Amino acid sequence: MRNIKLTISYKGTAYAGWQFQKNAPSIEEALLDAIHQVTGEVVKLYGAGRTDAGVHAQGQVANFTTASRIPPERFALALNTKLPRDIRVMESHQVPEDFHSRYSAVGKIYAYTLYTAPIESPFYWDYTWHIREVLDLRAMDTAARAFCGEHDFRGFMSTGSAVKSTVRRIDTLTIEDHSPEIQLTIQGNGFLYNMVRIITGTLVAVGMGKIKAEDIPGIIESGDREQGGITAPAQGLMLKKVIYSQ
Amino acid sequence: MRNIKLTISYKGTAYAGWQFQKNAPSIEEALLDAIHQVTGEVVKLYGAGRTDAGVHAQGQVANFTTASRIPPERFALALNTKLPRDIRVMESHQVPEDFHSRYSAVGKIYAYTLYTAPIESPFYWDYTWHIREVLDLRAMDTAARAFCGEHDFRGFMSTGSAVKSTVRRIDTLTIEDHSPEIQLTIQGNGFLYNMVRIITGTLVAVGMGKIKAEDIPGIIESGDREQGGITAPAQGLMLKKVIYSQ
Repeated sequence: MRNIKLTISYKGTAYAGWQFQKNAPSIEEALLDAIHQVTGEVVKLYGAGRTDAGVHAQGQVANFTTASRIPPERFALALNTKLPRDIRVMESHQVPEDFHSRYSAVGKIYAYTLYTAPIESPFYWDYTWHIREVLDLRAMDTAARAFCGEHDFRGFMSTGSAVKSTVRRIDTLTIEDHSPEIQLTIQGNGFLYNMVRIITGTLVAVGMGKIKAEDIPGIIESGDREQGGITAPAQGLMLKKVIYSQ
Repeated sequence: MRNIKLTISYKGTAYAGWQFQKNAPSIEEALLDAIHQVTGEVVKLYGAGRTDAGVHAQGQVANFTTASRIPPERFALALNTKLPRDIRVMESHQVPEDFHSRYSAVGKIYAYTLYTAPIESPFYWDYTWHIREVLDLRAMDTAARAFCGEHDFRGFMSTGSAVKSTVRRIDTLTIEDHSPEIQLTIQGNGFLYNMVRIITGTLVAVGMGKIKAEDIPGIIESGDREQGGITAPAQGLMLKKVIYSQ
């Protein structure tokens, strides 16, 4: 048996999320169907992270074991002939038996895109959060720095997932001004459920002057979900990359 | 009565094109519906150019006359509350009585975007033409220069529209390399039916080595549609701007 690692890009708009669901289309189901068509096998697919409905991915990772003799690098091409147009396997490789997309990951990079203009874009509304106000990017930069480092992020988590620890490390959090688009990029060793979207909502609240940048350390320390900003909408979020040590 | 000029952006994917059709959704119909809801009037809407099914616009222009007392600049906001998300009125102004979106136009700018990569993008396939081959951009640049100036473009026109003259002037035709995206931008005093898409298809044929750049002047002169490249697919085309003298 071979362990095959897939790197997958998808537009999440038409899906109920990564995870298989009985009565709604999921990315996982589309991939399982394609793998079944290509190999004849019903496999178990291990994804690096569950993206929610409407969330996109450029570099999602998943792995599965197969008895198929298809050369590992050929899976990308073969699966793409069976997949819908909004899901593409960018690469496929054979990896060691003990590689697990989720447990072997040492970090992740997410991007969140804001679209700041009086009128919403008719082109990119399924990739951005439309903000009518002009944001104070300098204040957002100051606030962003306060999130970096290791913190207990229990106040920046939606309920609905059981985790042992709510301590996570954010390595970098940058804000790039490509007006009218503002792109947030966040890299960390792991993220709690909705953590990126709540941090984004909090940074936008800072940009609007509703939360002060200097209050961020206290808000993190409070562990109180009520003190942060709203959970930014799903469509602006993109899983950019899953990081592995080798 | 006031003559109101609208500047409109839209994603054309879900529409059968600009022009009203009885059994298919059109941009024109969506705008007429919105104008009716806002003013109570059934107006005649004059568009600067008919975009085909799947073609997008950033700066389409249309005008209509109205007895409504809504301040001209407010139409954009008012219409946007009634329009679907993939159509936005970016600006609205009162213009002189004799302004006509089509007949007053002195030029147009179109962009065409190619996506050159082995694997199609799951994000931008409704905005780009996917090309697997690596294109020879230098040869395409040489070919592009041959299109500039005033020529009889009867060989770069699809049948289906009656025109008095097939002579048009191309002012600029540039090719920008933002790999994997390649953007063609073309400005001229007017374009025949499918002219931008046939020129694009011909330039791509040059980029693939199927047509030689130095043969372009002869192909234009021949007036023979068979000698050019294919008609590039609709989804890569964007009407960027309609130019008026004042």
